[in-house]
Amino acid sequence: MSFFSLVHSDSESQARAGIITTDHGIIETPIFMPVGTVGSVKAIEQRELSEIGAQIILGNTYHLYLRPGEDVLSYFGGHHRFMSWNKPILTDSGGYQVFSLKELRKITEEGVQFRSHIDGSKHFFSPEKVIDIQRCIGSDIMMVLDECTEFPVSHKEAKTSMDLTLRWASRNKNAFDNSTPRYNHNQFLFGIGQGSTYKDLRRECMESLIDMNFDGYAIGGLAVGEPAFNMYDIIQHSTGIMPADKPRYLMGVGTPENILTAIEMGIDMFDCVMPTRNARNGTIFTTRGRMNIKNLKNKFNDECIDPGLDLYASQNYSLGYLRHLFTVGELLGLQLATMQNLGFYLWLVRTAREKILSNTYRQWKHSILDIIK
Amino acid sequence: MSFFSLVHSDSESQARAGIITTDHGIIETPIFMPVGTVGSVKAIEQRELSEIGAQIILGNTYHLYLRPGEDVLSYFGGHHRFMSWNKPILTDSGGYQVFSLKELRKITEEGVQFRSHIDGSKHFFSPEKVIDIQRCIGSDIMMVLDECTEFPVSHKEAKTSMDLTLRWASRNKNAFDNSTPRYNHNQFLFGIGQGSTYKDLRRECMESLIDMNFDGYAIGGLAVGEPAFNMYDIIQHSTGIMPADKPRYLMGVGTPENILTAIEMGIDMFDCVMPTRNARNGTIFTTRGRMNIKNLKNKFNDECIDPGLDLYASQNYSLGYLRHLFTVGELLGLQLATMQNLGFYLWLVRTAREKILSNTYRQWKHSILDIIK
Repeated sequence: MSFFSLVHSDSESQARAGIITTDHGIIETPIFMPVGTVGSVKAIEQRELSEIGAQIILGNTYHLYLRPGEDVLSYFGGHHRFMSWNKPILTDSGGYQVFSLKELRKITEEGVQFRSHIDGSKHFFSPEKVIDIQRCIGSDIMMVLDECTEFPVSHKEAKTSMDLTLRWASRNKNAFDNSTPRYNHNQFLFGIGQGSTYKDLRRECMESLIDMNFDGYAIGGLAVGEPAFNMYDIIQHSTGIMPADKPRYLMGVGTPENILTAIEMGIDMFDCVMPTRNARNGTIFTTRGRMNIKNLKNKFNDECIDPGLDLYASQNYSLGYLRHLFTVGELLGLQLATMQNLGFYLWLVRTAREKILSNTYRQWKHSILDIIK
Repeated sequence: MSFFSLVHSDSESQARAGIITTDHGIIETPIFMPVGTVGSVKAIEQRELSEIGAQIILGNTYHLYLRPGEDVLSYFGGHHRFMSWNKPILTDSGGYQVFSLKELRKITEEGVQFRSHIDGSKHFFSPEKVIDIQRCIGSDIMMVLDECTEFPVSHKEAKTSMDLTLRWASRNKNAFDNSTPRYNHNQFLFGIGQGSTYKDLRRECMESLIDMNFDGYAIGGLAVGEPAFNMYDIIQHSTGIMPADKPRYLMGVGTPENILTAIEMGIDMFDCVMPTRNARNGTIFTTRGRMNIKNLKNKFNDECIDPGLDLYASQNYSLGYLRHLFTVGELLGLQLATMQNLGFYLWLVRTAREKILSNTYRQWKHSILDIIK
C-alpha cells in the first residue's frame, strides 16, 4: 500500500479524494486534524475524538519538547502510548511556535535559539534536532523545521528567509533519511513551502522541495495576517505546482469557507485551532450556521444544538442549556461546544469527500456556504 | 411500590440496603449523589454519570433559582428536561447556601432575605417559596428550608434556631401537601434535623419531624467544623431515632471513611463536593488510596489511573499522562480526574451495598479502609 493514493479527482474542480495509509490506520482526505497542542485536544476525550470521526490529530513539537519532554515521551514509548491515542498523529515542527515567540528567539544558519515561554530556559532547535524530537514523539507524519515570515515582508527578506527554509529542508531530509523510527511504526516527513505572497518565491521553494522528494508537501506561512485574496491566490498557485501523487497540507487554516475553498483548489489536509478555541469562547459552528451561544435569544431555545449532526452533544442538549452552561461558567459547556465544533468541522470535510466522489462538490459547496458562512 | 423498601439489614451493624423508587427510576441505597450545583456536575457529561453508576444527582435550589431561574426551568418543563438527565434528582432547599452567605442574609420568622452572590439583587426565601421553586425545578426529592447553625453555638442559640427550623418544617410540609407536581411525575419531601451537637435538641428536632410524617429524614448541620467525634456521635444518636422505613440522608458528608462509618450507623444517602472539587485540585481517590496527581513521582508512572475500577478514565490513561494534563493545565485532566473520583465514590457505596447484602460489611469496611484511608 502506498502512503498516499488518489481515489478520485473532481470533474469540475481541482478537489480530490484520497487515502493516506499509516501504521496507525488510514486517513480519508480531505481531512481536518483537531489540534492537540500539548498532548490533549482541549476539553475532549480521546474516545470522543474517535466518536466524532477524527482520523488524525496534530501535536506540537515545540510544546511536547518542553512538556512532558523527551525523557517522558521516550519512557512511555512515544506520544501515541503516552496519550492513549492509537490513530495517526502529525506533529508540527515547532517552526511556527518559535516564530510566534518573537522577542524570545534568535535565528542563525545553524538553527534557532529560543527561550521557553514557560520558564525562560534556553533551548536550541536545528533541523536535525526537530527530526530527533519527532522520532522521540513517534508521530506518523513529521514536519520539517522552516522559517515562517511575518506579513507583510519585502521580496528580498522573503527570499532570504525562503533560502534558509530550503537549506534547512535539505538538512531535515538528510537527518530523516539517516535515522530510523523508534517505536516499530513507520514515520513520514513533509516539506513546507514558504515565500510569503510572492509567487516566484513560492514556485522556487515548492519546486526545490519536490526535488528533495518528501512524502507530502505543506503550504506554510499563510493565515498570518494577509488578505484572503492573497491567501487563496497563493494556495491556487501552489497546488498547481504540488505533485498529484502526494498529500497536500494547508497549515493553520481556517474558517469553514477557507477550508471548502482550499479543497476546491486541491488541498487534502487542514488543521486549525478555530473550532476548539472558538468553542471555549462560546462561538458554535452548526450545520445551520455560526452563533454566539451566550446570546440572550438562546435563553428560551429548547431546540437541540445541531439537528444536522448525529453527535452526542448536538442531539442531546438544547441551545438554552448550552447557553446556561456558558452563563454560569460550567466546564461542561466547553466540553459540549468543543465536541459540536470539531464534529462540525469533521462533518464538513467528510461531506466534502462524499461530494467529490459523486462529482457534485462545487454545487454542494455553493449551497452549504449559503447556510453556514 | 412504596417510596422506600428496606431490602436487608446487616446482621453485625446498623448498615442497611434499600431501594428508593421514583418516577425517574430506582435508587439502590446506600447511595452517593454527585453534586450538580448549578445544573451540571462539574466536568462530566450526563451520559458519563450514568456510565459510572450515578443513580441520582443533586441540584441546589438557591443556585438554580438565580440561574437559569424559574422562568427558564418552567419553559423547559423542569430541570430533568433542561439538563437532559432523566434519572432522579434531589434538590437541596437552599438553606445551607443562604447560611453560607453570612453577611448577605437576614433571617426572620417569615423566612430569609438575602442578596444574590452574583449581582447583589435582593431575594426572599420562605418555606412556602422553596417548595414552590422545587415544584418548578421538578426534583424527585425536595428538601425543606431549614436554618443551619455554625459550630460552635450555645445550647440556647441552637435551641432557638432548631425551634425556627421546626416551625419552618411544618410550613414546608403544609405547602407541600397543598401543592401538586407540575410535570407529571411524583415528588417527595424530606425533613432536615438540626440541633448542632446537642443530643437533646437533635432528639427533639428529629422526633418532631417524624410526627410531621415526611418521606425521608436528613441530618443537617454537620461537617460545619465540629470534630469528627462529635459528628459520628450525632449520626449514631440520630439514626437511633430515625424510622427504619424511611430513607436517611446525611447532608454534605464527606470523606470515604466518613461515608463508610455513617453507613455502618444506618445512613442511606450521601452527597458531597469532595470527589468533584478535589478532582479539580488534582487529588485523586483510587482503590489503592488517595494521591496528589501532581506529585513528581507520577511523572514516569505508566500504570493506569486505577486498575481496580472498570471505568474509561481509570483503565485507559496512565498516572503519568494525568499528571502531565494537570501540569500543563489541560481541561481533560479535570474531566478524567472527575470521572475517576466520582466513579470511586460510587464504587464505594455500591460495594458497601453488596457487602451489607452478604453480611460482611464490617469486615470489608475494616480492610478497605486500611487501603484507602
